[in-house]
Amino acid sequence: MDVREMLLQVKSGEMDMDTAEQLLKNLPYEELGYAKLDHHRKLRSGFGETIFCQGKPDSYLVEIYKRLYGRDGEVFGTRATKEQYELVKAALPQITYDPISRILKAEKPDKDKKGCIAVCTGGTADIPVAEEAAQTAEYFGCHVDRVYDVGVAGIHRLLSQRERLIKANCIIAVAGMEGALGTVIAGLSECPVVAVPTSVGYGASFHGLSALLTMLNSCANGISVVNIDNGYGAGYIATQINRIAEK
Amino acid sequence: MDVREMLLQVKSGEMDMDTAEQLLKNLPYEELGYAKLDHHRKLRSGFGETIFCQGKPDSYLVEIYKRLYGRDGEVFGTRATKEQYELVKAALPQITYDPISRILKAEKPDKDKKGCIAVCTGGTADIPVAEEAAQTAEYFGCHVDRVYDVGVAGIHRLLSQRERLIKANCIIAVAGMEGALGTVIAGLSECPVVAVPTSVGYGASFHGLSALLTMLNSCANGISVVNIDNGYGAGYIATQINRIAEK
Amino acid sequence: MDVREMLLQVKSGEMDMDTAEQLLKNLPYEELGYAKLDHHRKLRSGFGETIFCQGKPDSYLVEIYKRLYGRDGEVFGTRATKEQYELVKAALPQITYDPISRILKAEKPDKDKKGCIAVCTGGTADIPVAEEAAQTAEYFGCHVDRVYDVGVAGIHRLLSQRERLIKANCIIAVAGMEGALGTVIAGLSECPVVAVPTSVGYGASFHGLSALLTMLNSCANGISVVNIDNGYGAGYIATQINRIAEK
Amino acid sequence: MDVREMLLQVKSGEMDMDTAEQLLKNLPYEELGYAKLDHHRKLRSGFGETIFCQGKPDSYLVEIYKRLYGRDGEVFGTRATKEQYELVKAALPQITYDPISRILKAEKPDKDKKGCIAVCTGGTADIPVAEEAAQTAEYFGCHVDRVYDVGVAGIHRLLSQRERLIKANCIIAVAGMEGALGTVIAGLSECPVVAVPTSVGYGASFHGLSALLTMLNSCANGISVVNIDNGYGAGYIATQINRIAEK
Amino acid sequence: MDVREMLLQVKSGEMDMDTAEQLLKNLPYEELGYAKLDHHRKLRSGFGETIFCQGKPDSYLVEIYKRLYGRDGEVFGTRATKEQYELVKAALPQITYDPISRILKAEKPDKDKKGCIAVCTGGTADIPVAEEAAQTAEYFGCHVDRVYDVGVAGIHRLLSQRERLIKANCIIAVAGMEGALGTVIAGLSECPVVAVPTSVGYGASFHGLSALLTMLNSCANGISVVNIDNGYGAGYIATQINRIAEK
Amino acid sequence: MDVREMLLQVKSGEMDMDTAEQLLKNLPYEELGYAKLDHHRKLRSGFGETIFCQGKPDSYLVEIYKRLYGRDGEVFGTRATKEQYELVKAALPQITYDPISRILKAEKPDKDKKGCIAVCTGGTADIPVAEEAAQTAEYFGCHVDRVYDVGVAGIHRLLSQRERLIKANCIIAVAGMEGALGTVIAGLSECPVVAVPTSVGYGASFHGLSALLTMLNSCANGISVVNIDNGYGAGYIATQINRIAEK
Amino acid sequence: MDVREMLLQVKSGEMDMDTAEQLLKNLPYEELGYAKLDHHRKLRSGFGETIFCQGKPDSYLVEIYKRLYGRDGEVFGTRATKEQYELVKAALPQITYDPISRILKAEKPDKDKKGCIAVCTGGTADIPVAEEAAQTAEYFGCHVDRVYDVGVAGIHRLLSQRERLIKANCIIAVAGMEGALGTVIAGLSECPVVAVPTSVGYGASFHGLSALLTMLNSCANGISVVNIDNGYGAGYIATQINRIAEK
Amino acid sequence: MDVREMLLQVKSGEMDMDTAEQLLKNLPYEELGYAKLDHHRKLRSGFGETIFCQGKPDSYLVEIYKRLYGRDGEVFGTRATKEQYELVKAALPQITYDPISRILKAEKPDKDKKGCIAVCTGGTADIPVAEEAAQTAEYFGCHVDRVYDVGVAGIHRLLSQRERLIKANCIIAVAGMEGALGTVIAGLSECPVVAVPTSVGYGASFHGLSALLTMLNSCANGISVVNIDNGYGAGYIATQINRIAEK
Repeated sequence: MDVREMLLQVKSGEMDMDTAEQLLKNLPYEELGYAKLDHHRKLRSGFGETIFCQGKPDSYLVEIYKRLYGRDGEVFGTRATKEQYELVKAALPQITYDPISRILKAEKPDKDKKGCIAVCTGGTADIPVAEEAAQTAEYFGCHVDRVYDVGVAGIHRLLSQRERLIKANCIIAVAGMEGALGTVIAGLSECPVVAVPTSVGYGASFHGLSALLTMLNSCANGISVVNIDNGYGAGYIATQINRIAEK
Repeated sequence: MDVREMLLQVKSGEMDMDTAEQLLKNLPYEELGYAKLDHHRKLRSGFGETIFCQGKPDSYLVEIYKRLYGRDGEVFGTRATKEQYELVKAALPQITYDPISRILKAEKPDKDKKGCIAVCTGGTADIPVAEEAAQTAEYFGCHVDRVYDVGVAGIHRLLSQRERLIKANCIIAVAGMEGALGTVIAGLSECPVVAVPTSVGYGASFHGLSALLTMLNSCANGISVVNIDNGYGAGYIATQINRIAEK
Repeated sequence: MDVREMLLQVKSGEMDMDTAEQLLKNLPYEELGYAKLDHHRKLRSGFGETIFCQGKPDSYLVEIYKRLYGRDGEVFGTRATKEQYELVKAALPQITYDPISRILKAEKPDKDKKGCIAVCTGGTADIPVAEEAAQTAEYFGCHVDRVYDVGVAGIHRLLSQRERLIKANCIIAVAGMEGALGTVIAGLSECPVVAVPTSVGYGASFHGLSALLTMLNSCANGISVVNIDNGYGAGYIATQINRIAEK
Repeated sequence: MDVREMLLQVKSGEMDMDTAEQLLKNLPYEELGYAKLDHHRKLRSGFGETIFCQGKPDSYLVEIYKRLYGRDGEVFGTRATKEQYELVKAALPQITYDPISRILKAEKPDKDKKGCIAVCTGGTADIPVAEEAAQTAEYFGCHVDRVYDVGVAGIHRLLSQRERLIKANCIIAVAGMEGALGTVIAGLSECPVVAVPTSVGYGASFHGLSALLTMLNSCANGISVVNIDNGYGAGYIATQINRIAEK
Repeated sequence: MDVREMLLQVKSGEMDMDTAEQLLKNLPYEELGYAKLDHHRKLRSGFGETIFCQGKPDSYLVEIYKRLYGRDGEVFGTRATKEQYELVKAALPQITYDPISRILKAEKPDKDKKGCIAVCTGGTADIPVAEEAAQTAEYFGCHVDRVYDVGVAGIHRLLSQRERLIKANCIIAVAGMEGALGTVIAGLSECPVVAVPTSVGYGASFHGLSALLTMLNSCANGISVVNIDNGYGAGYIATQINRIAEK
Repeated sequence: MDVREMLLQVKSGEMDMDTAEQLLKNLPYEELGYAKLDHHRKLRSGFGETIFCQGKPDSYLVEIYKRLYGRDGEVFGTRATKEQYELVKAALPQITYDPISRILKAEKPDKDKKGCIAVCTGGTADIPVAEEAAQTAEYFGCHVDRVYDVGVAGIHRLLSQRERLIKANCIIAVAGMEGALGTVIAGLSECPVVAVPTSVGYGASFHGLSALLTMLNSCANGISVVNIDNGYGAGYIATQINRIAEK
Repeated sequence: MDVREMLLQVKSGEMDMDTAEQLLKNLPYEELGYAKLDHHRKLRSGFGETIFCQGKPDSYLVEIYKRLYGRDGEVFGTRATKEQYELVKAALPQITYDPISRILKAEKPDKDKKGCIAVCTGGTADIPVAEEAAQTAEYFGCHVDRVYDVGVAGIHRLLSQRERLIKANCIIAVAGMEGALGTVIAGLSECPVVAVPTSVGYGASFHGLSALLTMLNSCANGISVVNIDNGYGAGYIATQINRIAEK
Repeated sequence: MDVREMLLQVKSGEMDMDTAEQLLKNLPYEELGYAKLDHHRKLRSGFGETIFCQGKPDSYLVEIYKRLYGRDGEVFGTRATKEQYELVKAALPQITYDPISRILKAEKPDKDKKGCIAVCTGGTADIPVAEEAAQTAEYFGCHVDRVYDVGVAGIHRLLSQRERLIKANCIIAVAGMEGALGTVIAGLSECPVVAVPTSVGYGASFHGLSALLTMLNSCANGISVVNIDNGYGAGYIATQINRIAEK
């Protein structure tokens, strides 16, 4: 109903005061048509819903996997345990599980991939987080170049891979302990760098806090940060940027 | 010198052992031609050097401003005080200063701007950081749409600006206190969101730590974070993404 | 037995003086040696004593359950394990256990419920804490409306439930990760909001610290906070407020 | 002007349609460019918009005070400095300032007050925060009973005031240093307690963190917490509860 | 050797320069006769060496227990596990173990006890730490009065025990969660109070940090603090004070 | 009134139900005669009230000084500024101020001193806190032996003062930076050691946190800790112990 | 094989050019896909690559052990579990494992040792970290003097070992809890002290944080710090210094 | 006067026994009442006593400067303010002050310098701390090579200085913000690296905490850490190592 029409009805007595006041209470929200928001967003964004498996009760998890697979013909979840894999597999035999990245998914074959992002790690212990990032980006349609074990304590290893970094539309820098990888990479490249601190380390690494602070305080330009061990988040953002580049 | 040639000279005795060992010590670095790196990077990236004024001794600061202006015909610095402005102005009368953003710059006229990023704030107290971001992006060639005072405690203010957000290639979300703005924006848009926590607040905001943690733990996709009050860093990344979009 | 009821029986002669005096002797508290059961609490607050099961030695726990059930005909405890359930069940067969909320109780049938509070969660992983809150409120005599999985990263989900929120006398907002739910809800409603941070999350959520800080720094009005994962505390306060509303 | 009153004037013909429509156009919020005044808040929550003065640029502040006073005939702001007072006074001579609570307001005379809340402090140094709470509640229509300097290190001081606590619909407990006041009060009363940690203290009080943690970990029932030094927030919540009690 | 004598020898040439310089290097330490220190201290202090069992390798632990028992005819250790108990028992059958306090000891019969200290707890979950304190004091010759479960959320429980507190030479206050017990006790008594924070709690108790800060920031006089869960340390200090009182 | 008498009156109808219930609500508190508590405590304890000057509003401060001096003929306050000194002096010319300890007092002449405590510091920068402790103890009737600048980085300085330490009834160890002084002293002496961390230091001393943690984690027996810079608290406890020793 | 040895063989004709060139091709690093073995490190630093076993996937670990042993005839890794030992042993029977230090290595017999470093601990629980340091230094060619259990709470134990400390080229001080050992040692000696905080302790030791802060804030000269429990790092630095001393 | 020189004079008869004995009596330390000057330190460590000026009361400071200068003919202090300089200058005209390093000293002319250490910084803002380190090392007899502004965000700047780093006996790496400089340098060099975190930065640098954690968690070998901004400490250690190298 139009505001003017409502006022007219108030004036004429067709609408009582309480009804009018209630309508006005809803005014800023009614205009939105927010029920359409979500559907519209998915159409635009090309990213389907994904599942954060950690801590999901078993029955919920299986149901959600079946529902999403049924709707989309594919489904993608992160941080799954081996037990969750077996549970979901019983209900959805197409499902596959990678114990390194802990990704649990069923993917359409022959999906098209475009552009390229690079995923770098400081050490081998950072690879699980890096694989979460890399496989997320691949699922959403990116080519991924893996540049692993190029930590800055032996800087020549990173420098010798410079050509590969330059080709990427976005670089993900995954590192634990002191977490300096992102800064050096951002200094060598022109594309945005998404830094992922990992919980790799001990003692004063405080489960990734040290690497997180390093990355936030980077003196390089063009570097932003996601949560500790959040490979998925970095893969998502890199895909957004890659998609922009390849439009 | 070629590795084989060196080995031949060792074998023939033309080169003594110490010289050979020294050459091998430099091997991973010599290959790089790293002296050319920096020049090459500037050619590619289109971002000139910028100046972080905070804490720079006066004589250094003036000298750097003059040098960069002399070379490029423009110069851009952040976190300048009014005192620094007056100091630099004495040596470089073209300089201008914005007390809100604390940017001290001399800019070429009629620079071309492309694409668009949106800069949003939760409250009016976040505007100084937002302006640092916005003016950085403008200096580097972006159009900027300012969407200020749309904090989530009155969500209809943000929702009513949704159309403006959708047009941006990248959105910067600037917020202090509880810092939830970035999450809601990322849920409404398809482009990457760069979140900037600010030190606005008191008590348990711990000078921006609360907003920083909020943003790092965002349950939305497509959001990455920079340091507390780092408007410059966010403006730089948004420009990188905007440039990719407009290529 | 209720104090007022005892007084009535004294008055009517149903209870003799010695029995009454004996009962009142324990009124301030009942000494168990290792514990002092606070029977006076109900008189002060209108709520009987409840049991925090976590970490209670087995023999103490069983004894306390028996003593309170014997006095009141019902008993309510939180944070019980399955092992504790089995232990108590052996001594008190009426006991029931809900593995989601971890509440271990024996409740009088057909208790009267009044008014209404709403319990909201950001995600499905927050449900155990929400259930602790909801079942606490129900035990103490509230109707509860559960509004689950309405996190702010998809704001339309929350907005579409606005009507339900408006009907409540008090709203409990349960959220982990970035914990922004409480702020948005408080911005939409006129009743007090009790925010419960949960330890759901990883990395920089620091076991609920991030959500806790978010809620404490909320820029919305009308929001107060309880300890991380303290569903019981929120349910108790909401009941107090609901009781005031329904008086 | 109140929405209901406007509707009545429309109904009676005192206000013409165009004026009413124009007023409602600004209802969701009024755009000032740098700020969006939330006129809809009163309709949602029953409380008009208030001003957090700290850190507001001078020109913004004066404008916002004038705008809100013009619309409502009264205006209320917190955390104002003496300088801000003088600035606003020049533009709005009706304004008054209390240097203890730092509240800067112009209030309608002879406002009706209902019900009662109690505001308690541990020491005299907590009084500024307590006054912010008390005067907020009074502005919004509560009677306030001030019970100051009843810290738990001399427990008889608090116990001797028990009668006053019992009469309140809600109690605000304001304390710094170890912050134990709220727990003892909640153990003595049946109404909700809102605890406000203050930054009073030194050393390991860490600017109020110690008191905040104490309050969050309270082993008493019926206590919730707001940000350090957030007297306003506590006053607001207590008013909500008092309003419910007095309905 | 006497300094003067050394100088004479230097003068006479009996001692060469290097020897003299070396002797002077040791000058401040040689004077101490520090090798006798430890023996002397034990004679004076009446406290034998005790064993911190936690983390001790098995073979070391058994050996130390045997050695000390062999020398003194009794032995006392804290934080022992059940496994350690069984290990030591095999070598030293006289040993006894209390699973609540985790004290592993063999004690001479009929030891004399003097004076009195009181050990108080906030709740039943604090009893293990309290027992470590109480049994330490008893081992070293104190009478101990246990006043358990008198937390400040039901202050009448503590107040009713006031007479017992007044009789003690020193009071140990053991409490987790918000840890306010020590402050209230110190306000009620004239003897020194040793406060022991415990790791009892959850969420923002941060494993005892909250209780620790509360106790350090106590606004009461006459209260000092030991490490989280350090019942032994508190029992030791209380014994020192009790011994002074009973001299 | 006696409980039995109340029951009789209920039975006979002399007392109505509401009155009886109200009486029972007060039961645990009425028994206490708490109004007498405070007076009684002062009689017993021999410690008059002291004033924490920091942050006290000027008018309150002057009034309190006058009142206490009027009643007791002496008065003692800590953490006073020079400005507060001048203010109080205008009203109370007898007052004296020590800018090192920041103690503001008027003391009766020729007070009797008994026993002895030792006050030690690690460095010269810790002297202000040490003087607060020493002068507190002197005001309350202790002899004090000052053993300053004996930090453990030059351990011979401390060792050479061992004789003085052994004579004390209680030792106060005041140290900033790494704060190890207390541990070494406790290892050398048989009396209780009260450790006072100071905020002396820089960088990772975090304003005294480092010294505080050191002292809490001391591997020596017989050491307890007070808040950072809390010389007063340490002086008070040492006096309590000294008084016990000299009884 | 050592680089210098290879060059000698090339010179002498024992090794042909192609073999040498092939070997040098891997000199900067050897690419394993998931790892990049830094063979150049020995040339740069004089120390071969070592393996941080913690968290390495099994297949990677075995492969790296075999590769490094194949090249150098010895191999050294830290933080290995018993399971990893058995895994590697199956592929490399020469391997030996020390469960205290958790070092997993195969070492050339009869290696030359030079100079001397001292490794001290505060208590017996610090020995595992101390052994990691000591055995690292021994592997790299140092003599090591172990001075264990000389914590500062019984200072005579340390003082009586002063002669041994004075003979070392570098001293490693390993301590948990309050961590004061390093300061006292540095005050007694003239060589550099490398302090290693350990996670030994409980409560406010915060897993080594307290000891770490103590060491960083040391008021002694000549002390530097490595990460919590980082025995390897300290052993490495001490070896560097010892190597300089013995050159 | 030097101890050896004194012994020579005793031997030759230039100095009588009483004078020598008197001098040795003061050797361990000289008692000033408030301070104990550690004259023995030079004998133990080879380094004379230095003065930490920060927070020293004025009269103490001047006295200490005079005493040490009188004894040694030179004196060295750190963290002096300009005001302290003027104060000391009035009493000791030979004193000189460097406002960058804040070193206040009087130095013997033509002192011998040996060996070489390198002092590196990440940025220009780190220079004050670096100069404190460099000038400390120079005062104690080192040559210093300053390699400033070689932060890792532009890695070519550091790589191009590799030759200078290789020549040093010890390298000091001074960096704020993310503090990654030390790691990269340690990876490039064979001598020990002493890392100094600085408080340069803002936001999540937390006054140097971020850089400190980075350095402690370095994945490079051969790096140890001192307190935030502790240039003096680093200079001292580097001098110890340099002295070993040049022996």
